[in-house]
Amino acid sequence: MSEDNELSRREFVVRSGAVVGAGMLMSSPLGVLAADGKEATTKSRGYAAFDTSGKLAPWTFERRTPGDNDILIETKYASICHSDIHQMKGHWGVQKYPQVPGHEIVGIVTAVGKNVTRFKVGDRAGVGCMVNSTLPRNKLATLENVEQYSPATIFTYGYPEKDSPTGISQGGYSTNLVVRDHFAVHIPDNISFEEAAPLLCAGITTYSPLMQAKITKGMKVGVAGIGGLGHMAIKIAVSKGAEVYAFTTSPSKVKDILAFGAKEAIVVDDPSKMAPYQGKLDYLISTIPYQYDVATYVSVVKPYGTFTQVGMPVGFQLSLNALNLAASRVNFNASLIGGMKETQEVVDYCADNKVLPQIQIIKAEQINEAWENVVNKKARYRYVIDAATL
Amino acid sequence: MSEDNELSRREFVVRSGAVVGAGMLMSSPLGVLAADGKEATTKSRGYAAFDTSGKLAPWTFERRTPGDNDILIETKYASICHSDIHQMKGHWGVQKYPQVPGHEIVGIVTAVGKNVTRFKVGDRAGVGCMVNSTLPRNKLATLENVEQYSPATIFTYGYPEKDSPTGISQGGYSTNLVVRDHFAVHIPDNISFEEAAPLLCAGITTYSPLMQAKITKGMKVGVAGIGGLGHMAIKIAVSKGAEVYAFTTSPSKVKDILAFGAKEAIVVDDPSKMAPYQGKLDYLISTIPYQYDVATYVSVVKPYGTFTQVGMPVGFQLSLNALNLAASRVNFNASLIGGMKETQEVVDYCADNKVLPQIQIIKAEQINEAWENVVNKKARYRYVIDAATL
Repeated sequence: MSEDNELSRREFVVRSGAVVGAGMLMSSPLGVLAADGKEATTKSRGYAAFDTSGKLAPWTFERRTPGDNDILIETKYASICHSDIHQMKGHWGVQKYPQVPGHEIVGIVTAVGKNVTRFKVGDRAGVGCMVNSTLPRNKLATLENVEQYSPATIFTYGYPEKDSPTGISQGGYSTNLVVRDHFAVHIPDNISFEEAAPLLCAGITTYSPLMQAKITKGMKVGVAGIGGLGHMAIKIAVSKGAEVYAFTTSPSKVKDILAFGAKEAIVVDDPSKMAPYQGKLDYLISTIPYQYDVATYVSVVKPYGTFTQVGMPVGFQLSLNALNLAASRVNFNASLIGGMKETQEVVDYCADNKVLPQIQIIKAEQINEAWENVVNKKARYRYVIDAATL
Repeated sequence: MSEDNELSRREFVVRSGAVVGAGMLMSSPLGVLAADGKEATTKSRGYAAFDTSGKLAPWTFERRTPGDNDILIETKYASICHSDIHQMKGHWGVQKYPQVPGHEIVGIVTAVGKNVTRFKVGDRAGVGCMVNSTLPRNKLATLENVEQYSPATIFTYGYPEKDSPTGISQGGYSTNLVVRDHFAVHIPDNISFEEAAPLLCAGITTYSPLMQAKITKGMKVGVAGIGGLGHMAIKIAVSKGAEVYAFTTSPSKVKDILAFGAKEAIVVDDPSKMAPYQGKLDYLISTIPYQYDVATYVSVVKPYGTFTQVGMPVGFQLSLNALNLAASRVNFNASLIGGMKETQEVVDYCADNKVLPQIQIIKAEQINEAWENVVNKKARYRYVIDAATL
């Protein structure tokens, strides 16, 4: 650890000079900022998992004291990602509890550390799947757009974070957040907070591989799994001029899918429904977050085309039939969110081009019900928690 | 079925005009050719599996009567591929027995059908994994270089073949072979029969994806699994100027690997041995024919590089960790042998450039022992059966 990485609590100052910021800061209900004392922490109130049941309950906890490179954000909205559920249920490994999920977070900056120049109090900010790094400031700056693959990166919840009072990072279903400035993006004025929130994971996770695939006008793009991520993939690909084929298991989503701009909505109630599309698509992105018949989906891509898996199944394990994969001659890859530069890019792109998620705003007390709906494929298409109700 | 696909037994004639061919034909010990009778068949003597035990025994059987588009080949050598063992043991699905394995076959043409112009009696010919197709001659000709992906293709052994007296195609561990002319290649004079045999599967299976990967001078190419396929992959990549890194679990192969021209031989007795190579290679081809820790091997390829699986595991199933695959950002694909045009190309390329397999010639009675050695990683590196001993 370099000196740069140590948190100088004493030097973390509340810069309330900004006009917008002042009122926001005053209204922060729980933020207790370090003025000079070592004991100072930042209290937060959120919804946490206490075990693998998939049930959350209110919890008040302390966040790490913001340091020179951090910003403090008062949460306005946080949206629900299927990953939250997977991780809390222990599908991706044993978890430490209580743990607050949530990695699609937007709010107002209420304080900034002394090294922070990118944000000022009152700014609208967003945070996705990453909040911190063990790298010093100068090293972190060199990781442009590959932060998600750095072993030093601390993800937004459940990750060991030595200066966090709970020992792990705690996510965004909570009234505030302490985040390294590098991992926050600006939310422009031409998009609402609630519509911006889902862009921080669902948006970037689909945008990044679509850009990598160099989607151009007229390309035939498949999207498999039309939930929070899938519906954004459709909208982003359509906005880039692609001809989109959406594969869903829910007949009730067909109307929405066509409204999102897809050319076709294919209800895959049986693998044979994929047959007419064999070898037809230039590219396919699968957001399906469970083990599934990968080879059948791969078969709809043209030989030497590309298939990207972004949905992360239980245990992250996917079983592939190598012979079928050989027969399709398709390149199979997987993609994990995106870097910070690209996260800012997707937020700006979606705001400018009105590529907006279809959301349902809920109160904190509805979180458990919303989670059940996500698992049962009833979400339409992203639940966004109003942080004022936490 | 078109008329063109029907076998006109009466018109199948022995064209024994060629000087070389005459003697060969006379010496054919078992070939009983149809002169005009409907009953005529082609007897063959080979080694067959009778169950899933993985043990072979001598067997005499009848082959289909050659038709207008067929050639008859007197086998000189047939080599042993790990796939033979997988299939006979039922690892790839329930088999019909008795079944003769072998899909790396070389010999002399002893008869040709009336439509055949590419071969004449006496020609040196090779046959790989495909022997027939339900497509008529004109349609088959349009499949240039993608025959292996055609649903109409009949693979060399164990495939339903309606005019075969045994109901299935029977492979090359046998004294002769009836093959559609489209599926035979010429063996040039500048390569021995015994060294040409392994090129028909091990050669083409590694050559095809290496060409697809556009291997150029100085590229860092990894080869995982150094058996029959792997050692050819090393030699082909080296011949193209690549810097080859070979990953093996057998310390006893290191000396050979370096002699094949590899820059490094890495003994992977523990996954940690891969760590120093993380993200270093431009491309990797894996010939490992069993389930293995794919993600660890994928990790040595550079981000956005390509990884090709050619070894086909039990049940063809490979389990991948999607998160690790995402972290490596590598394109994972699989490849199945190669088309006929490319098969001729690899034979000519290897003959011209002296890219030759390291072989051990065995007698028929040693086949069972050889199979055990293949499974136990003791083959060095391809067993070639002398058909005169069958």
